[in-house]
Amino acid sequence: MRTSQYLIPTVKETPSDAVVVSHQLMLRAGMIRKIAAGLYTWLPLGLKTLQKVETIVRQEMNKAGALEVLMPAAQPAELWQESGRWEQYGPELLRFKDRHQRDFCVGPTHEEVITDLARNELTSYKQLPMNMYQIQTKFRDEIRPRFGLMRGREFLMKDAYSFHVTQECLQSTYDKMHETYCNIFNRLGLDFRPVEADSGSIGGSSSHEFHVLADSGEDDIVFSTDSSYAANIEKAEAVAPATERQAPTQDKAEVATPDQKTIEEVTAFLNINANQVVKTLIVEGAVAEDHQGPAPLVALVVRGDHELNEIKAEHIAAVAEPLTFASDERIKDALGCSAGSIGPAGLDIPVYVDRSAAVMSDFVSGANKDGFHLTGVNWDRDAQITEVADLRNVVEGDQAPDGNGTLTIKRGIEVGHIFQLGTKYSEALGAKVLDQNGKAQTMIMGCYGIGVSRVVAATIEQNNDDRGMIWPDAIAPFQIGMVPMGKSDEVKELTESIYNQLTAMGYDVLLDDRDKKTSPGVKFADMDLIGIPHRIVISDRGLNNGTIEYKNRREADAQDIAKDDIVSFLTNTVKH
Amino acid sequence: MRTSQYLIPTVKETPSDAVVVSHQLMLRAGMIRKIAAGLYTWLPLGLKTLQKVETIVRQEMNKAGALEVLMPAAQPAELWQESGRWEQYGPELLRFKDRHQRDFCVGPTHEEVITDLARNELTSYKQLPMNMYQIQTKFRDEIRPRFGLMRGREFLMKDAYSFHVTQECLQSTYDKMHETYCNIFNRLGLDFRPVEADSGSIGGSSSHEFHVLADSGEDDIVFSTDSSYAANIEKAEAVAPATERQAPTQDKAEVATPDQKTIEEVTAFLNINANQVVKTLIVEGAVAEDHQGPAPLVALVVRGDHELNEIKAEHIAAVAEPLTFASDERIKDALGCSAGSIGPAGLDIPVYVDRSAAVMSDFVSGANKDGFHLTGVNWDRDAQITEVADLRNVVEGDQAPDGNGTLTIKRGIEVGHIFQLGTKYSEALGAKVLDQNGKAQTMIMGCYGIGVSRVVAATIEQNNDDRGMIWPDAIAPFQIGMVPMGKSDEVKELTESIYNQLTAMGYDVLLDDRDKKTSPGVKFADMDLIGIPHRIVISDRGLNNGTIEYKNRREADAQDIAKDDIVSFLTNTVKH
Repeated sequence: MRTSQYLIPTVKETPSDAVVVSHQLMLRAGMIRKIAAGLYTWLPLGLKTLQKVETIVRQEMNKAGALEVLMPAAQPAELWQESGRWEQYGPELLRFKDRHQRDFCVGPTHEEVITDLARNELTSYKQLPMNMYQIQTKFRDEIRPRFGLMRGREFLMKDAYSFHVTQECLQSTYDKMHETYCNIFNRLGLDFRPVEADSGSIGGSSSHEFHVLADSGEDDIVFSTDSSYAANIEKAEAVAPATERQAPTQDKAEVATPDQKTIEEVTAFLNINANQVVKTLIVEGAVAEDHQGPAPLVALVVRGDHELNEIKAEHIAAVAEPLTFASDERIKDALGCSAGSIGPAGLDIPVYVDRSAAVMSDFVSGANKDGFHLTGVNWDRDAQITEVADLRNVVEGDQAPDGNGTLTIKRGIEVGHIFQLGTKYSEALGAKVLDQNGKAQTMIMGCYGIGVSRVVAATIEQNNDDRGMIWPDAIAPFQIGMVPMGKSDEVKELTESIYNQLTAMGYDVLLDDRDKKTSPGVKFADMDLIGIPHRIVISDRGLNNGTIEYKNRREADAQDIAKDDIVSFLTNTVKH
Repeated sequence: MRTSQYLIPTVKETPSDAVVVSHQLMLRAGMIRKIAAGLYTWLPLGLKTLQKVETIVRQEMNKAGALEVLMPAAQPAELWQESGRWEQYGPELLRFKDRHQRDFCVGPTHEEVITDLARNELTSYKQLPMNMYQIQTKFRDEIRPRFGLMRGREFLMKDAYSFHVTQECLQSTYDKMHETYCNIFNRLGLDFRPVEADSGSIGGSSSHEFHVLADSGEDDIVFSTDSSYAANIEKAEAVAPATERQAPTQDKAEVATPDQKTIEEVTAFLNINANQVVKTLIVEGAVAEDHQGPAPLVALVVRGDHELNEIKAEHIAAVAEPLTFASDERIKDALGCSAGSIGPAGLDIPVYVDRSAAVMSDFVSGANKDGFHLTGVNWDRDAQITEVADLRNVVEGDQAPDGNGTLTIKRGIEVGHIFQLGTKYSEALGAKVLDQNGKAQTMIMGCYGIGVSRVVAATIEQNNDDRGMIWPDAIAPFQIGMVPMGKSDEVKELTESIYNQLTAMGYDVLLDDRDKKTSPGVKFADMDLIGIPHRIVISDRGLNNGTIEYKNRREADAQDIAKDDIVSFLTNTVKH
């Protein structure tokens, strides 16, 4: 492609409303343009990369035996009513009435539609397993669309759904998808990690997320130093400390701690470490649907230097889901002091204690009395444990749950997620097949998503410098950039010849044919901003020495290549 | 692909709610499934063809230098308010409010969004011409979605928009798109015609439609027997008869024609031909925007055997647009008789007369008096002509407007449309660039659409028989079908070997590996239904003679091919 026949409206200034680097650079490089909050037009340069990602995803899904389908974006409310999600889903679901006043939504996901298809078209276990996918534009009415394509309202998604009669069969397809996702992200050229994840409200028993590692990531990803263990911090198990609880050596004593409320204030005031204090958090307890009056309260205790993991807390049966912290008023009414003064000693509600807090002795806690703390508190003697549980986020240096090594934490951007869904949707919609014994059986489902447009943004978050983006060869909009300098016939002819050769070989080449009014510096800056991984400069000066300058976007220095070798050099260098 | 690993849920019975053959066959062949009125899921088989069409469209658009972009489906109301279409567009436009109560629509077309992009990104004539296109799912809330994919609510469209500073430049891109569309429909393997079309309400000066010829088409397409002239009947000019008007030979006379209202009744009653009568139709006249009271009336006169062309009538400045027939009540009030008794003689409103009616003499017409007609009516002497105009649909045998040959009429399905849009949107949105003289100039636009999903349906409408569809090679979901018969090792091994060879060469091959419980007859019927253009049968009986049976879907008889030649035979036969 010649720049004169293309549209790359690069911008020098960083747009003021773009916070994250991928958003900034995609705007600056002329890859996307915003038309409304969370809605973007993909310009030619951006679309080229998006389509390359899409192609790799499609090829690997096909290789894995998944069948591509295309479901409508508009979905009738009836299906969502059958699954119960018409009521459950919040305002992120774009609902509309058609001209006949029938209810529809624009699908943010397609479990209902695919399960409806499966119940109509699949009749026998012999047709299973079946894994169907689509690559489709979805809509999610985010309350605050932000970060460009990282959290837009319209986005391109690959969503797959598999159907099975046995858990073993689901596991096998699930494993295949795990492998396929690794193949996809490897081919994309990304530094990524599959991590164990919480299945969340979508239900099901097993779930992995695929994260692109990037400092700007929204998620904390936990790794073992010595094993392949990796998990989202939401899920990563904080194992029990190896040390056992020591016998008490101190008596419990009340100390006045006027106006000392936070852990930082209390530890500074008492001159102790945070790991000698416990934090006691009061949340609402789970209640039956027909429960009258306020929910019971439940106490959650973690060590002062640890953070409560809300997802883990939600998994406790006695705790309300979603996790709801009791209001200050409620705490005062029920427990007689403010939230900051609560401690486990003498507390007349269930007390769930994190594994690390449960082995503490002679510790400090709130006194359940404003303005005071207790020192020398000991479990059993002074405070009762209802149950010990894993309640906290892991921290760097924790023992890995598989016993191999310790944990480190990095930031990640979620670009893929695979679930074992179970029978949530097939049960609700009555999607059954006949099994080997001729008996109707509800199908077991898996589902597998990749945020295709998000991958583009995540790639940039992971691959950029102060000059712009740096594309992996596989999804660079153009793999090779050419900048001719000088007006000699040789420069012109050689430029055309190399361009034609490379293009004929199937490389995506961007030839900057802007005239002399655009300086070489501007041309180089644009190539760098766009992130073209391989650049050559054909100049009179170089040709006088019989060479063409080659520069890899990731390397500091250029190198001179004999002009006759440039094409073979590039074909050896560029991953194709 | 092996049928055992695929999903082709064929159905024997013709679905009762499917009227047109493409809809029936796509449901029966398991290419699509309906999820709500006008909303379909593309199953794997259907999607394969859809994607092949999409690929050919994309390749040819790229070859023509058009730049692919992808605009959001959701569009902010503000842009449509700028163009005025937010008010003008009827309930086919799906409007919605987002969670912040802002108005949006789901785009049935993207003139506003692309013009907004152009006004922001294009600044100089040097960047022009620019032609941008997308291939995207659109939504149109049809009042009565029908005919499956022919008139669905969600559909895949290729829409392109070009920008220019001169009419010559627009004409050049327009011609290029005309040529590109011919290339596309030729590559798709369709019998099609580009025809002149009325530009309609979208405005602009020139317009062509591309029609797939099929008896089931909704449009009448007019061709010359001797030239390349072709036009939609809406547009096709009915030239003035070569014969001049004869002098009157009869006196005007009133005859009682009790209860004879239609042309058929009157001609039968008076024992004359329909071409000796005129039809006089009363429509509302055009009025200024601030006009008070009822619109004036206008009479339109065509020969009794001709049909009024409403589009042509609308083009008369004195006639209201859209064309509105006066109510019986209004006619009675204003003209003193019922609509069926109107005639031009003595009529005190403007009378527009079709060219063929204007050369009649001694003709019969209504008497403007219920229960009577006039005979021996003559223009000028008995009835006044306000203006002679082209007001009728052409009929078979009419003189071609270019003077070469006569006209024939076929049915067509519109699958593409190219327009010279002019400045309608660029003017409204203020999309300007600086011209050679540094002066801001409103850009001139063209737009170019192809109904990608409609092409799939139209192809079936054109290519089918009582056994099913017949795909052109280029877009067949599978080009080659293989049916192994017999359990011998040779059948098995040769089947695998041929399948692997053809697949490795890039052919899409469907191997029917269903077991013996499915009879060969059923397998053949499925292959025919799906419309696979080339079928081979590897059987013990054939192999005993060293042959494999080949059958072309379009031919009645199979032929035996030496087994060693089958692959080369197929590669020579199948268009790839």
